Amino acid sequence: MKVNSAHLTEQLDTLAGFSDAPAPAVTRVVYTDTDLKARAYLKSLIAEVGLSVREDALGNLFARWEGAEPTLAAVATGSHIDAIPFSGRFDGTVGVLGGLEAIRALKKSGFRPRRSLDLILFTAEEPTRFGVGCFGSRALAGALTPDALADLKGDDGSSVLEAAAQAGFAGDAGAARLLPGHYHAFVELHIEQGSRLEAAGVPIGVVSAVAAPATLHVTLVGAGGHAGAVLMRERHDALLAGAELAAAVEAAALATGVPDSVATVGVFDVYPRAVNSIPSRVFLSVDVRDIDLERRDGMVTRIRRDLGTLTRKRQVKAEVVVVNADPPATCAPEIIQAAHAAAEAAGLAAQTLVSRAYHDTLFMARVCPVGMIFIPSKGGVSHRPDEYSSPEEIAQGVRVLARTLAALSSA
Amino acid sequence: MKVNSAHLTEQLDTLAGFSDAPAPAVTRVVYTDTDLKARAYLKSLIAEVGLSVREDALGNLFARWEGAEPTLAAVATGSHIDAIPFSGRFDGTVGVLGGLEAIRALKKSGFRPRRSLDLILFTAEEPTRFGVGCFGSRALAGALTPDALADLKGDDGSSVLEAAAQAGFAGDAGAARLLPGHYHAFVELHIEQGSRLEAAGVPIGVVSAVAAPATLHVTLVGAGGHAGAVLMRERHDALLAGAELAAAVEAAALATGVPDSVATVGVFDVYPRAVNSIPSRVFLSVDVRDIDLERRDGMVTRIRRDLGTLTRKRQVKAEVVVVNADPPATCAPEIIQAAHAAAEAAGLAAQTLVSRAYHDTLFMARVCPVGMIFIPSKGGVSHRPDEYSSPEEIAQGVRVLARTLAALSSA
Repeated sequence: MKVNSAHLTEQLDTLAGFSDAPAPAVTRVVYTDTDLKARAYLKSLIAEVGLSVREDALGNLFARWEGAEPTLAAVATGSHIDAIPFSGRFDGTVGVLGGLEAIRALKKSGFRPRRSLDLILFTAEEPTRFGVGCFGSRALAGALTPDALADLKGDDGSSVLEAAAQAGFAGDAGAARLLPGHYHAFVELHIEQGSRLEAAGVPIGVVSAVAAPATLHVTLVGAGGHAGAVLMRERHDALLAGAELAAAVEAAALATGVPDSVATVGVFDVYPRAVNSIPSRVFLSVDVRDIDLERRDGMVTRIRRDLGTLTRKRQVKAEVVVVNADPPATCAPEIIQAAHAAAEAAGLAAQTLVSRAYHDTLFMARVCPVGMIFIPSKGGVSHRPDEYSSPEEIAQGVRVLARTLAALSSA
Repeated sequence: MKVNSAHLTEQLDTLAGFSDAPAPAVTRVVYTDTDLKARAYLKSLIAEVGLSVREDALGNLFARWEGAEPTLAAVATGSHIDAIPFSGRFDGTVGVLGGLEAIRALKKSGFRPRRSLDLILFTAEEPTRFGVGCFGSRALAGALTPDALADLKGDDGSSVLEAAAQAGFAGDAGAARLLPGHYHAFVELHIEQGSRLEAAGVPIGVVSAVAAPATLHVTLVGAGGHAGAVLMRERHDALLAGAELAAAVEAAALATGVPDSVATVGVFDVYPRAVNSIPSRVFLSVDVRDIDLERRDGMVTRIRRDLGTLTRKRQVKAEVVVVNADPPATCAPEIIQAAHAAAEAAGLAAQTLVSRAYHDTLFMARVCPVGMIFIPSKGGVSHRPDEYSSPEEIAQGVRVLARTLAALSSA
């Protein structure tokens, strides 16, 4: 079996060109023209490999290589191609184009799978447009009902379903759900987005668990006014309340004393946003993660307690929406074992680690046994234009993925 | 002399309709179509009163009622009609339409001024579009050279001069400058934007000094990354640095122990602004004001010291641009006296106070002796849609302004 690294690198480069940011930055938001063009490019590559394609109402895409026993539950791999604003070219795409290359290499080697093999493109792993991550795989897992989907609104007020229809995806969103057992196994290849593999000098990571994310949307409402005329003591400055909340979010993560606890304010919108006007309202996103559900929930509780304290002190009002609070996923021992065996057969060192970032795998875990294979990220950098994994590192990941899929589809 | 309050109220209502925000909010940014339509409306009102109009290269407008001795330095009144996003309908407009009504009432009463009387519409008192307040009156005062004006860029990258030319204003920006002594006196009618007059139950405020504003633009650059994957201890989160700076800005104002010290962060832009991405860059505006120049500069020094401390601690980089750091203005005793005499003649109580907000008067003080007349603001509220002064309060301010202008133009 031979992985075509040059070909794969060229595909990753071409895909990175479908971007609403100047290179090397990538911005590819779900259902935009740029996203649709990137999907068309992917479909052209899938056609070259000779797989049949199905798309659901949300744009989740399933490309099938039929197995010798097509009535058995299939084995799947895949990831996403949407990219947050001004990010890089490897997050998600390595799992999609690498998954396709794994299938191509297996086909070319003369391998014939017993179970069918699916490449899945998940719609919108990133929460950029609709505020919630993984709505594609969430819907597949039944973690988002059609009603909840219809309620999910983007920055521009449009709902996911409207946006999907406008992008040309048709059908019943309810039918998108994959019932438990639909797949025999799911394995996702992904960049680590951290620096543990690089630090250890190990080319392959086998994931044991995926951290549990919680996302809060917090709106703080104080009182505006003229920045020159209103005395400090008379103020109810929403921005200062927001600044204290951001500090409390950091403190909550540090307080656990565990490196796996992380918490981030990534969005901080100020209204009316004028140099000489006291902010009357701010909107913050709070992202809290841990591989331990109890500890994660403990951070959220602490943040909400501190929020209560600071809003009382500053006499501002707070509205909190829990956008998601997902449980962590544990990877299946048989898939962990298959991935380790594949690495060994490929002559590559592998180490077991947890994924602090979440992935579509988190939701596929509700459908079937799951696993993930990580490759190193240079400097641990991700969600930035300088995100990087070398062609060789990517090819090594694809080789391990291909062998893992081969083993799982033969079982 | 009779002030037509109903007519003036109607004009203020009509002017508020020229807005890019839904009523009652007003958004009127300099050189936008909405601003130009509002100016056209004002010019139609000026034509009804029979004044001759001159406009300079920046759109500062001068409407003249020629006096009996037109070679003497004229007396001027006026204010601005631009409005920050989602603000109210009285800030600035009361001084423009009220100034016009004062002139109309004086004309109708049979009064004939010795010195010519000018109504001035100042371009862009608000810093919304180009970051610096009062660029119209700054240019008149020679506080902004044509070179400095050319360097002044808006959010969209366009310069003030390009934007002015596109809005149809022509000529030499250097020629906009009014040399010291160009006017005999300048008096601005304005809403208080604070609650001192309301609290005291006094309808007229006579301003003794205008506070000195300083504006800093601060850019903080840290390191981005995936909100799940990068450990707390590895982070250089620009947003958290910005949050600490906002807290330091508040602390600097509180630390003086003087109510006249105020400091505000009104703009806080986050990049890349994604739920699951560590902010790599933030941009803040810092607005610092005091009626005492030394105390104001002391606050700025303290904020810069704290900025140094927090950037070292978090290992983020800071770039600070001092957009303006103006000295305060002292009002002329003869104008303060004329305004008090006018209030007394009109049978209205008046009190002397300082203006913590700055106004075009701050810069006109470099051209000629200046004064300001304040009317009450309901609840001290300004820069908000619920900004309010009653028709009676406005009419009282116009009566005092008219009598003050009559006295000054006769001297």
